[in-house]
Amino acid sequence: MRIAVAQLNFHIGNFESNLKKMLSAVDTAKTQNADIICFSELTTCGYPPRDFLEFDDFINQAENCVNELTKAADGIAIVVGSPSRNPSPLGKNLFNSAYFLADQKIQQIANKALLPTYDVFDEYRYFEPAKEFNIINYKGKKIAITVCEDIWDLPTDGESMETYDPLYTVRPMDELHKQNPDFAINISASPFSYTHPDSRIKIVKANVDRYKIPMFYINHVGAQTELIFDGGSIVMSGNGNLHAQLPHFEEAIQTFDLDEVTTGEHNIVPGHNKMQMIHDALVLGVKDYFGKLGFKKAIIGLSGGIDSALTTYIAAKALGSENVRVVLMPSQYSSDHSVKDAQDLAENLGLEYNIVPIKPAFDTYQEMLAPYFKDLPENVTEENIQARARGMVLMAMSNKFGHILLNTSNKSEMAVGYGTLYGDMCGGISVIGDVYKTEVFELCRWINRNKEIIPTNTITKPPSAELRPDQKDSDSLPAYDILDEILFQYIEKRQGPNEIIAMGFDAQLVKRILRLVNISEFKRHQTAPVLRMSSKAFGMGRRMPIVGKYLS
Amino acid sequence: MRIAVAQLNFHIGNFESNLKKMLSAVDTAKTQNADIICFSELTTCGYPPRDFLEFDDFINQAENCVNELTKAADGIAIVVGSPSRNPSPLGKNLFNSAYFLADQKIQQIANKALLPTYDVFDEYRYFEPAKEFNIINYKGKKIAITVCEDIWDLPTDGESMETYDPLYTVRPMDELHKQNPDFAINISASPFSYTHPDSRIKIVKANVDRYKIPMFYINHVGAQTELIFDGGSIVMSGNGNLHAQLPHFEEAIQTFDLDEVTTGEHNIVPGHNKMQMIHDALVLGVKDYFGKLGFKKAIIGLSGGIDSALTTYIAAKALGSENVRVVLMPSQYSSDHSVKDAQDLAENLGLEYNIVPIKPAFDTYQEMLAPYFKDLPENVTEENIQARARGMVLMAMSNKFGHILLNTSNKSEMAVGYGTLYGDMCGGISVIGDVYKTEVFELCRWINRNKEIIPTNTITKPPSAELRPDQKDSDSLPAYDILDEILFQYIEKRQGPNEIIAMGFDAQLVKRILRLVNISEFKRHQTAPVLRMSSKAFGMGRRMPIVGKYLS
Repeated sequence: MRIAVAQLNFHIGNFESNLKKMLSAVDTAKTQNADIICFSELTTCGYPPRDFLEFDDFINQAENCVNELTKAADGIAIVVGSPSRNPSPLGKNLFNSAYFLADQKIQQIANKALLPTYDVFDEYRYFEPAKEFNIINYKGKKIAITVCEDIWDLPTDGESMETYDPLYTVRPMDELHKQNPDFAINISASPFSYTHPDSRIKIVKANVDRYKIPMFYINHVGAQTELIFDGGSIVMSGNGNLHAQLPHFEEAIQTFDLDEVTTGEHNIVPGHNKMQMIHDALVLGVKDYFGKLGFKKAIIGLSGGIDSALTTYIAAKALGSENVRVVLMPSQYSSDHSVKDAQDLAENLGLEYNIVPIKPAFDTYQEMLAPYFKDLPENVTEENIQARARGMVLMAMSNKFGHILLNTSNKSEMAVGYGTLYGDMCGGISVIGDVYKTEVFELCRWINRNKEIIPTNTITKPPSAELRPDQKDSDSLPAYDILDEILFQYIEKRQGPNEIIAMGFDAQLVKRILRLVNISEFKRHQTAPVLRMSSKAFGMGRRMPIVGKYLS
Repeated sequence: MRIAVAQLNFHIGNFESNLKKMLSAVDTAKTQNADIICFSELTTCGYPPRDFLEFDDFINQAENCVNELTKAADGIAIVVGSPSRNPSPLGKNLFNSAYFLADQKIQQIANKALLPTYDVFDEYRYFEPAKEFNIINYKGKKIAITVCEDIWDLPTDGESMETYDPLYTVRPMDELHKQNPDFAINISASPFSYTHPDSRIKIVKANVDRYKIPMFYINHVGAQTELIFDGGSIVMSGNGNLHAQLPHFEEAIQTFDLDEVTTGEHNIVPGHNKMQMIHDALVLGVKDYFGKLGFKKAIIGLSGGIDSALTTYIAAKALGSENVRVVLMPSQYSSDHSVKDAQDLAENLGLEYNIVPIKPAFDTYQEMLAPYFKDLPENVTEENIQARARGMVLMAMSNKFGHILLNTSNKSEMAVGYGTLYGDMCGGISVIGDVYKTEVFELCRWINRNKEIIPTNTITKPPSAELRPDQKDSDSLPAYDILDEILFQYIEKRQGPNEIIAMGFDAQLVKRILRLVNISEFKRHQTAPVLRMSSKAFGMGRRMPIVGKYLS
């Protein structure tokens, strides 16, 4: 038996294009002599469809798409992810399903039982968990088909079943295993974080080790606003060896012979370089954000600092230099090297750049507000006016020429609220908002590993917002290596103040940083979606009260 | 047996103040000779605590709070909502619980089984559903204790059990009913929408009609960012008569004698006026947003139009006129009456107002951008520059003087994207973003029912953004009564294009409006939290993809 793994990039709600792509893949699989082709999770409608699932019309269109695919299931079986209607009146009205199509009929529907409802996932918002588990018989083989999370509730990293703390109360593969399947298929939409490619291999291996059958793990590829699906679909032999892995961050269709997979003669040990992965994920995130919205051109405010330099580099890689416009907007506090560093980057990347000094706007606002501000001392107000004047220039150019403004804030400054709402926090998508400042440095050095693309001075000079004379980030924040570690423990690891202080950090500093994170929630609420790189990004994956008193 | 209903306003994460408030209520209940005092859902930590529930430190603090209350359960029993740890390794690690405290001990814990995970609710994100149901025996009475949603999965409005479509697969009160309880207690945190006070009475009645026992329904009161809890706790006799209802939108502690409740001699028919309710909810929403964040003063851009007039009126009611500053920012396109209407409102409300014409800023940006815009025709860019210049002035004054800027967008314009990001869409909280334009008119007329507070001309003149000569909203949008009905069907009722067209609306218009709603998702993503008035508000209750193709 030959099984085709189709790792493709789908578009939410674009049923016509998604169907066309799948029909074309079926043709390809037939040329590869496949007996079964497997798509990823919820491919008819794209993942995640979010509240569109509440529209009957949307579900009808997904069903139509399955019906069209059913007609194509002729001489080949198709495993496709799509919502299905719950036939029981009890519980939610939909299942998150894997349809098994063969002989131009819907032969069976396997429903997802473990519905991730944490971090960026909201699946119990829409779906009823499956309570029945049936293997599928096809051409003399018994197949265990599951959907994404269904295989994830197992220990990895050497933890034992005895100490493991299951998130769910059933284990679908345990149930299917009782029916003696020959192999397993899992269709997934597993979003990228820089630790997740490794985690996926570990969890597939944990399943294979437990059930002793080959597993085909089919992942989605492509970005959907903040979520980036990195592909890397896995074929694992029944002996726990990695038989094959599809590429990361690109589409692929590849067919495998079950007999070869079963013998498991290959033993690939994949290596995932964190900076390479983040780089590729950011590029795909920007590319698909523009491509799927039907936009081509980006605009970026280039300060000469490292954050806007990195954002610009990513945009140029994703969209092409000819589609990226940068604007240098020096103020009276900008240092000489800022303009030079920004120009150097623009030239290295072959970008069009404009220079629009913001002093005229700053002076005008000073005059307009003088009757009210009178002799009050300058403070953060005047810093914010500069940042907002820049945002205004960028948005005006964006409006006039049809560019999308890219936000350049990094995760460290978003965390502590070190940014101006409606100023440098403007933008349609936050490119590096899930990359800590220390990682920004690391990534820029990685990008420069063979050749200076991001000017060395941009990387080596002390970070500054340049909103007042001789300002440095270090005037108001601790060193970034300390700040980022405290933030990582609080945000990614959900450690409280006592736990973090017990790690050896200064108690007052920890309390101050955690307070800054909490009181900045109102700012983050109003920022662009953030391309998710870590296991805990700002935005849909981290939902905090704005009005509250805990640690604030 | 005497039961005290304590409908109080709690603060998320403010364990100290929440505990103090509960201890004081216990004292009050003792003076009312209560045998049991009942608080609402998750009162130790405040509702909704959101992802703070993932912090072990946060749960510890809630447990400490329960322990302190346990000491006070001396001569009185206490029913209190708090998270509790799931003793089983299987499933999520927390329950959403009602603790029953008596004789200075935790006597029993009743866990919530139906975990609302739709609209603004994310409870399965945190909690494991209960699978066991046990009544509580106290002083010779058998009590069925449930938490909020546990009583909601029943038909109302005359629908039969046969045709009803349950959202869940168990019904906790059916299970408890088998144990012959004498009465029921439900502790809730049920957020306001203008239909919900009626729905609550209906659902309590549906339970009483089914189980034939009195029910005490204790609701939370107070606003938590976008969610407003309106109290209105219910005591219903076993014969289905409404015995008593606590006030809406304010704290109250009232004790009832079970014997009197059982006889059910009262029969109150509550009347809920939609405009009165929305008015009171908006005022409480603004009041608590400021009070719980520790702010006092608001700033608002007053255009002379009806949206900013209504927002200003609400702010003055909530915060006091002395705490509201309004700024008039006429442009070259502002009509004469705009300034006059704005001044009239400010005077009617006794508000300080400033006039800051925005022409200098507009001219300066024109000059700064002239080298790039050259001879390109004016378009939406120049309109947005005006709106953003106003946002900038307001934010500068907000920064300098410590005001919070209130957003003045209504639901109709937020829906179709008729507003400028970083311009008139600025603000810390959106006051009327869940009030359609037609409702804005209705509410203003209601406010003026006895006396002209909002200038009549503000209500009667044709709506205009005044961003180009003689502009009217009706130039680019259909009449608001038609627009709002289409929006209501799409947003609140989740009807697709075909269903809405079948109601008799013009097909092209429906498609255009739905498209505008969908392509404006990126703008709404970056706006302030919206005070929730309806069953489907923008924000946390409506989660849509930004990048997608469905109806766009």
